Amino acid sequence: MMNIAVLVSGGGTNLQAILDSERRGENPNGKVTLVVASKPGVYALERAANFGVETAVVRRKDYDSSEAFDAALLGVLREHNINLVVLAGFLSVLGPSVIAAYPNRILNVHPSLIPSFCGPGYYGLKVHEEALKRGVKVTGATVHFVNEVCDGGPILLQKAVEVLPDDTPETLQKRVMEQAEWKLLPKAIAMVCSGEV
Amino acid sequence: MMNIAVLVSGGGTNLQAILDSERRGENPNGKVTLVVASKPGVYALERAANFGVETAVVRRKDYDSSEAFDAALLGVLREHNINLVVLAGFLSVLGPSVIAAYPNRILNVHPSLIPSFCGPGYYGLKVHEEALKRGVKVTGATVHFVNEVCDGGPILLQKAVEVLPDDTPETLQKRVMEQAEWKLLPKAIAMVCSGEV
Repeated sequence: MMNIAVLVSGGGTNLQAILDSERRGENPNGKVTLVVASKPGVYALERAANFGVETAVVRRKDYDSSEAFDAALLGVLREHNINLVVLAGFLSVLGPSVIAAYPNRILNVHPSLIPSFCGPGYYGLKVHEEALKRGVKVTGATVHFVNEVCDGGPILLQKAVEVLPDDTPETLQKRVMEQAEWKLLPKAIAMVCSGEV
Repeated sequence: MMNIAVLVSGGGTNLQAILDSERRGENPNGKVTLVVASKPGVYALERAANFGVETAVVRRKDYDSSEAFDAALLGVLREHNINLVVLAGFLSVLGPSVIAAYPNRILNVHPSLIPSFCGPGYYGLKVHEEALKRGVKVTGATVHFVNEVCDGGPILLQKAVEVLPDDTPETLQKRVMEQAEWKLLPKAIAMVCSGEV
């Protein structure tokens, strides 16, 4: 049984998809036992509480250095005996010590078909803005393992999503979440927990 | 009625898909009236002849400079009153004078979801080798207008294709052709001929 920590920064819709999947019994080999937010007051913390999951807030600006922030985050993860870390819209960057502590045990979801529209600077709405600017007709989402290269770790799952003629970055972001991210992330977590990958 | 030239370098399966589509009446506003090969003896020339389409061979090595090659190619296209040029696996590079003569009237098919796996050096099997090396789970094909930037012109159509666990570059190339290239290219040609784009 793997203890899963989900790291969030906002509304937590990806977290909700993960919790809903767990409730439906789709991940018999894992359980979300901790939600870590990068700032207090975000709605994801409320979703976690509603589900009876413990929460923590680890805020970058509370620490003098990124090393101290990493150490604090790692401390919280170890305290809860976390085996798998899931980045679900976590906007702080994980340092090398955290990545080294969880080799092939950190998952991230990225809102494009990597290697398109990824790397430093590509996060959130910016990804969809760039996709629309290039005029692509197909985009999607990717779940990958996190390593030391930004968006460069091994790909676990990808799903394509159609771009529509009237799309704005906002409508495209919503469709990619609904059609791809919310489906891929719980599936990827269950695959890792089952030992399938 | 648009006169279409299809430029080829090999077996001509994309050409066949275009001709089959025309035979089915799917492009009432255009007709393939010329097939140009980059070397003699390729099977695409036989396919053209079987369909009653005129052929020409314009070979880079028969000319002293790329400018002279471009001039010869342009001469053949003009002689046949060509309105739309389709690159269907044509392995010679079109020079600026050809591109300038057919603004938004040259289509190319690329065997990936641009902007992934495109640009200088990415052609043929190499595209699929790189996709498998990166471990993507979704790839596809793109039909785009040709401008002065390699694989950088406006995208007209894209279609996603699943990568399977046992894929080799060869099996992936075949699936991308069958599921995407052969469908997208005739559709894109009909869209341009109808004035829809």
